[in-house]
Amino acid sequence: MAKQSEEPHLGRWELFIQAVILLSLVDFALETLPSLSPTQRRLLEWFEVFSVAVFTVEYVVRAVGSRPAVKYLLSFYGIVDLVAILPFYLGLVVDLRALRALRFLRLLRILKLTRYSQAWRRFHRALIISREELILFAATALILIYLAAVGIYYFEHEAQPEVFASIFDGLWWAVATLTTVGYGDSYPVTAGGRFFTFVILVIGLGIVALPSGIVASALSKARAEEDEAARCGKTGDPWTDETDAD
Amino acid sequence: MAKQSEEPHLGRWELFIQAVILLSLVDFALETLPSLSPTQRRLLEWFEVFSVAVFTVEYVVRAVGSRPAVKYLLSFYGIVDLVAILPFYLGLVVDLRALRALRFLRLLRILKLTRYSQAWRRFHRALIISREELILFAATALILIYLAAVGIYYFEHEAQPEVFASIFDGLWWAVATLTTVGYGDSYPVTAGGRFFTFVILVIGLGIVALPSGIVASALSKARAEEDEAARCGKTGDPWTDETDAD
Amino acid sequence: MAKQSEEPHLGRWELFIQAVILLSLVDFALETLPSLSPTQRRLLEWFEVFSVAVFTVEYVVRAVGSRPAVKYLLSFYGIVDLVAILPFYLGLVVDLRALRALRFLRLLRILKLTRYSQAWRRFHRALIISREELILFAATALILIYLAAVGIYYFEHEAQPEVFASIFDGLWWAVATLTTVGYGDSYPVTAGGRFFTFVILVIGLGIVALPSGIVASALSKARAEEDEAARCGKTGDPWTDETDAD
Amino acid sequence: MAKQSEEPHLGRWELFIQAVILLSLVDFALETLPSLSPTQRRLLEWFEVFSVAVFTVEYVVRAVGSRPAVKYLLSFYGIVDLVAILPFYLGLVVDLRALRALRFLRLLRILKLTRYSQAWRRFHRALIISREELILFAATALILIYLAAVGIYYFEHEAQPEVFASIFDGLWWAVATLTTVGYGDSYPVTAGGRFFTFVILVIGLGIVALPSGIVASALSKARAEEDEAARCGKTGDPWTDETDAD
Repeated sequence: MAKQSEEPHLGRWELFIQAVILLSLVDFALETLPSLSPTQRRLLEWFEVFSVAVFTVEYVVRAVGSRPAVKYLLSFYGIVDLVAILPFYLGLVVDLRALRALRFLRLLRILKLTRYSQAWRRFHRALIISREELILFAATALILIYLAAVGIYYFEHEAQPEVFASIFDGLWWAVATLTTVGYGDSYPVTAGGRFFTFVILVIGLGIVALPSGIVASALSKARAEEDEAARCGKTGDPWTDETDAD
Repeated sequence: MAKQSEEPHLGRWELFIQAVILLSLVDFALETLPSLSPTQRRLLEWFEVFSVAVFTVEYVVRAVGSRPAVKYLLSFYGIVDLVAILPFYLGLVVDLRALRALRFLRLLRILKLTRYSQAWRRFHRALIISREELILFAATALILIYLAAVGIYYFEHEAQPEVFASIFDGLWWAVATLTTVGYGDSYPVTAGGRFFTFVILVIGLGIVALPSGIVASALSKARAEEDEAARCGKTGDPWTDETDAD
Repeated sequence: MAKQSEEPHLGRWELFIQAVILLSLVDFALETLPSLSPTQRRLLEWFEVFSVAVFTVEYVVRAVGSRPAVKYLLSFYGIVDLVAILPFYLGLVVDLRALRALRFLRLLRILKLTRYSQAWRRFHRALIISREELILFAATALILIYLAAVGIYYFEHEAQPEVFASIFDGLWWAVATLTTVGYGDSYPVTAGGRFFTFVILVIGLGIVALPSGIVASALSKARAEEDEAARCGKTGDPWTDETDAD
Repeated sequence: MAKQSEEPHLGRWELFIQAVILLSLVDFALETLPSLSPTQRRLLEWFEVFSVAVFTVEYVVRAVGSRPAVKYLLSFYGIVDLVAILPFYLGLVVDLRALRALRFLRLLRILKLTRYSQAWRRFHRALIISREELILFAATALILIYLAAVGIYYFEHEAQPEVFASIFDGLWWAVATLTTVGYGDSYPVTAGGRFFTFVILVIGLGIVALPSGIVASALSKARAEEDEAARCGKTGDPWTDETDAD
């Protein structure tokens, strides 16, 4: 396969495959609609057979085109491609409808274009730079969620025995509150519980919001490193030598 | 038209036009109130006729004042100005009430003052700087939303067949949850669904929150570039030569 | 009054005043409780009289201590202090209960200590640095909210004529949604309205979240400027010569 | 105790202890489930006795292994370890079930590994760097919450006397709104209250969101200082000489 140029262009086949991937995801969602007519349902099933056929042809072509074939078959994307079609064939024997959702894995292919793999690489580098802080805040956040759950259980269990039946209900409340989703299915009603919520939010919002700030700042740093490396003539690119069956 | 100074001042006519734009938007909103008396309704309609008359006069004046006239007529703001009055005149023939909302486009004029166009330029530059990351995170976010929708459908469909009737309901839930809006019209009730929500939120919040951090950091960089360019005597301003009919 | 040292210490009188301010705010909130006994209500009213007496004494002492007195009386904090006690005396004649809330203005005093005024100054500088971007995003956010309101009205008015009775209900929905508060009192139920919400959120979240990132980055820059100025021996401090009656 | 290497490895005993800590937290949550069978309840109680036994053995071993023993007993982690087991023994005499939640304090041990203590140190340094801004914004946020509570009370008390019965209900609303949790248990219904909410959110969101941006930026600065110190051969590490009983 030829060297990938700076501005990768998608071949017609590649574009067709990606259109089929997207349509098969829509197809999958449509099949769950409860009010489908038998005709509509049959159409959706036909399209599913068609998309699996396309994916199978692509799988075989890629395997044959790769020398040796096993290199593609055992590569990350080779396994992804297999996982995307296997459930259909297994489903002919046993009912594995749920497994068909695995076809979303093919979406990963879209991310594989060169220019985005650079962004991935930068993101990966940013995660390495900020790894310690992220682990620290993840651990702190988990402890805080547990604490919040225990606290709200003690404050609210008596007033709302149904809503806060156990600490596990408290955990669900803590997740919905500290992420500020706030569905409104459970919330404190006692003065103590509300003040406790205030304290937990003051402490917790910072801890939950910090990681994205940390990663954004690490991304800046990773970009600066790249610029520096580019100026010094070093490539230092761990992916340069990566051989890819695509 | 004279060169715009650093501190642009709005002429009286310009201020009048912008006041009419704002009032016509308020007028538009007021007309949807269900409990209006016939007198009030007539007043609002009169003001609408008045505002369209003002916009029409402005359109003609601008077209005449621009040499050649076609330059204004085919410019971005010329088309905006036309789109803002056309629905009224078409509406005399057929009912195009909905199209009147297009008059909001006139609001874009407000942003046209020189000093803010510099901020726009910087924002535009920041988007270019961070384009790759933004596309990466947008694609990742879309995949994550699809995944979350499929997942919550499998966890909750049985327990809440009405609320999670299909994957499309799952998509709506995923959008409301990952943006932390959390209306509370749909939320998981099973232990599995709640744990799945927790996992999706831990992964997803970062992905949803990162882009604004990335753009903010790119804005800093764009500003630094400007300072650098100013120091080096380069203008490097792509908008300098832009001719504008205004 | 002596020069303020780096580490300002609060005198006993100052601490006492601030305690009275805080307690009078608590007192104000307690008075709104519907289930107070007459004794409790009388106690709260007594404390209110006491706090106003303290504030009046402080006001007179400050006015007398300042040469000339008018300098304090016309200063920002002189007016704040007057506003905090005036409603009580006016209330003896006419009922101005609502105005008593103005006493919260005294809280501004707490922020007046030197070390925090430096942080305020830096924040003020950051706002000046990022002024253009902030105005740009504020204007864009307002336009987006109007657009979202008009859009959701057209999508949902028919399905939920009560909830989305006019564009003003749409505005309320847009505010609650784009800030991700999501009370759950109004939300789209049609497929079109939900997809529209998704699009508005994708565009809007960045615009709503960006300003705080911009200000945070401007704060860094303001701090860097201070460090630079400190290194160069320049003070460049616009507040240095400010004379303060405190 | 040997010097800790760069990549700290957990001994088998350490790993066992931490597994017991985690399991005892799960045990604690499970015990609050209302639908447990007597057998399940007994199993959970047995595990609790087992975990306290393990923690007691660990406590004694650590105390004996530290020379002098009192150094461990009075250290931070010595007190944490005591607090984690004391409630059980006291509970044999009086009912102190609630105090058992204190065992979560043992989780702090997990954070004690060297590599994360560096991240803690950096976080601590970042808090010191941004202390003034954080205090400023915390004070401003508290004032804003009080203001919002008073305002919404005046706007909504008449329309919803049950929901906004006193300023304390307004405080709860202000906390849930400004953190964008938005449970939906209380929200304005009057036009005035909704417009007030809009204004408060525009002012407040920035103030609530800024601190995490400030800390993230201070973390970058703390990291830059570390890099600088490393380059200059200075360690400047306040924890280097810390003696730890672990």
